[in-house]
Amino acid sequence: MLIEGGGVTSAKGFSAAGVHAGFRKNPERFDFALVVADEPCACAGAFTQNVFCAAPVVVSREHLEGVSYGIARAAAVNSGIANAATGERGMEAAREMARIVGDAVGCPAQEVMVASTGVIGQHLPLGPFETGVPLALEKLSREGGHDAACAIMTTDTHPKEAAVSFTVDDPVYAGCTFTVGGMAKGSGMIMPNMATMISIITTDAPIQANVLHDALLRAANVSFNKVTVDGDTSTNDTCLLFASGVAAPGAAPFAEGSPAFAAFEEALQAVCMNLARQMAADGEGATRLVTVNVTGAANDADADAAARTVANSPLVKTAITGHDANWGRIAGAIGRSGARFNQEDVSIDIMGLPVCRDGMTVPFSEEEALKRFEDPEIVLDIDLGAGDAKTTVWTCDFSHEYITINGDYRT
Amino acid sequence: MLIEGGGVTSAKGFSAAGVHAGFRKNPERFDFALVVADEPCACAGAFTQNVFCAAPVVVSREHLEGVSYGIARAAAVNSGIANAATGERGMEAAREMARIVGDAVGCPAQEVMVASTGVIGQHLPLGPFETGVPLALEKLSREGGHDAACAIMTTDTHPKEAAVSFTVDDPVYAGCTFTVGGMAKGSGMIMPNMATMISIITTDAPIQANVLHDALLRAANVSFNKVTVDGDTSTNDTCLLFASGVAAPGAAPFAEGSPAFAAFEEALQAVCMNLARQMAADGEGATRLVTVNVTGAANDADADAAARTVANSPLVKTAITGHDANWGRIAGAIGRSGARFNQEDVSIDIMGLPVCRDGMTVPFSEEEALKRFEDPEIVLDIDLGAGDAKTTVWTCDFSHEYITINGDYRT
Repeated sequence: MLIEGGGVTSAKGFSAAGVHAGFRKNPERFDFALVVADEPCACAGAFTQNVFCAAPVVVSREHLEGVSYGIARAAAVNSGIANAATGERGMEAAREMARIVGDAVGCPAQEVMVASTGVIGQHLPLGPFETGVPLALEKLSREGGHDAACAIMTTDTHPKEAAVSFTVDDPVYAGCTFTVGGMAKGSGMIMPNMATMISIITTDAPIQANVLHDALLRAANVSFNKVTVDGDTSTNDTCLLFASGVAAPGAAPFAEGSPAFAAFEEALQAVCMNLARQMAADGEGATRLVTVNVTGAANDADADAAARTVANSPLVKTAITGHDANWGRIAGAIGRSGARFNQEDVSIDIMGLPVCRDGMTVPFSEEEALKRFEDPEIVLDIDLGAGDAKTTVWTCDFSHEYITINGDYRT
Repeated sequence: MLIEGGGVTSAKGFSAAGVHAGFRKNPERFDFALVVADEPCACAGAFTQNVFCAAPVVVSREHLEGVSYGIARAAAVNSGIANAATGERGMEAAREMARIVGDAVGCPAQEVMVASTGVIGQHLPLGPFETGVPLALEKLSREGGHDAACAIMTTDTHPKEAAVSFTVDDPVYAGCTFTVGGMAKGSGMIMPNMATMISIITTDAPIQANVLHDALLRAANVSFNKVTVDGDTSTNDTCLLFASGVAAPGAAPFAEGSPAFAAFEEALQAVCMNLARQMAADGEGATRLVTVNVTGAANDADADAAARTVANSPLVKTAITGHDANWGRIAGAIGRSGARFNQEDVSIDIMGLPVCRDGMTVPFSEEEALKRFEDPEIVLDIDLGAGDAKTTVWTCDFSHEYITINGDYRT
């Protein structure tokens, strides 16, 4: 069940805060988020596949895989500076960030996950942590999720939060209500590959670290990894999932394959998909959320290639901005996607309006099409007629605002 | 040697014309081009790899590969309507287009190459050919190349023409001056794969059809196939090359591997690269031609992937529009390109200004960078430090004008 106004602190056992630490010039803007678990808990992470991966990604991965063995206590995120392409000095800054937060929270640096988002190629100053971390610790609360979600924003126009509660039909967990909640940011340089920009998700369900990771990857693959704003995979993509187990104190962890675990995965995927859709809808300069459904593909890879190529096509995206049912651009995109099909087997609908059948144009009312473009979510349905595989990818349109935002972002 | 003002009729043995036939509403705008060889001559073609390939592409390919065995007499191109995604009716229209032109010129329909460019999914009317073809035949002349180049334009802001002359140091061809000349169009939906949008090239060098094809593919691979405006491969890409042999009447054809053939290929590649650069510079909404040089790649495929990913990155392209030396976006793009390298081995220069060394930011004068962005051609030099392979890809920046053009192109 979706929790109205829920977020990263909806699950029991977690506190959060968002503060202005000084990474940004504007003192009214939060730029440092802290999420802390009451006790060390299971943690899983999924990270960018970009070769130019940022220092905090390397450090968090080291902590999670090499040192803390899937146990963590806190996540710290700064916005404004990505600490990417900063060499050994950047690595030292990321390690120092973890040390300062660990000291303040009272845990080893290895139990702190760090993430950064912002401009690439600038060095991360440590001064803001000296003032920001104590301030965040002071503000840390069960209600701090919203401030934390605000603090990780870059060109996002609003914070992204979601939470879902669920129960498990098993006497072991009788009377327990579990929650999965999270926050995310992401607006430009968005085509995650393995994880999203930055997302932190928490749950109070009892899940062991070794199975938490697989659940996170499965959820990311049907949510964050299906979002693309501009085809640009970031250097800093980080998705973290913490499981405190606080909702069922003393109970056995959910076993993989059990109905309890299935209920958890369903809730996790619902939260991730909700955040992913929010991310696509708030893509830089977006005026519309665009959902691309591909069916009838020969296999999953073909479905993904076709949907992603349509979702990344500047010609398709600008047509949507222009409220133009120019389906020829969709045809052009699937045709160059590498997916195998015969053009005479293709059907395309725009907002439920059939515009292409058997690979050919069909007459439709331009007036009706224009009306349907008023909807905040534009749905494109493409059937390749080549098999049974299908997928959904989310994106946004491509407006003047995207050019404005990215033509003078850094200057 | 570059011929000032040269084009598709610079080579001896060819005439051309451009007229208003009626595919477009504006009577002042040419929309039909005809290029005719004095005699049937060797012809090669390279065509789109898009599954949704247009009817004229299918018909021209059939003529060239199946019926005329590399001999052709004329090329006919209409602009305004692409005759793509039009099914059997579209195929009939393309065949009829070839028949009408063949009847007028006095050759079998199989010796006519046809091409169309414009909106996808609309049926091609035959009426305009009935008036347009006789009109074009009447205007056909050695000076008609420029009109033809104007007639194939869509959102191009100016016609694209180039011609190069060369001599051969071989007594067999003493006193002969050979010419390669051509025209091209291409502005949006540009990321050719095997051929460009529409380009017709002629030469008066004596080349046999069987070796002409390979020479065209080699030339396309270092020119048109290295251009990308928006990553969208068109449904209609067509590149044709005619060789009349008129410059050396009675002489033996250039043998593959001979100095004469090498001189021809050099001239052909110079014309193709010249047209390709014009195409990139005139990309929809372009304010700058962008040249992406990648060196130090592990192999050719990696070099191409890195250069193409940078060239297609909306974030890189909008940064150039904003005159912003935001090299982090270039790093992000190569990092997700699939090319193998270590980030600490990477160097990046923007307009000759070192901005990244050993994968890290280096101090540079923002003022100097801004000054260099005034240049009409922006050069990005990227060294991956992973090997000896290199490539060059051409693109343009991404401006408000692109959104304006493509947000209301059809309506």
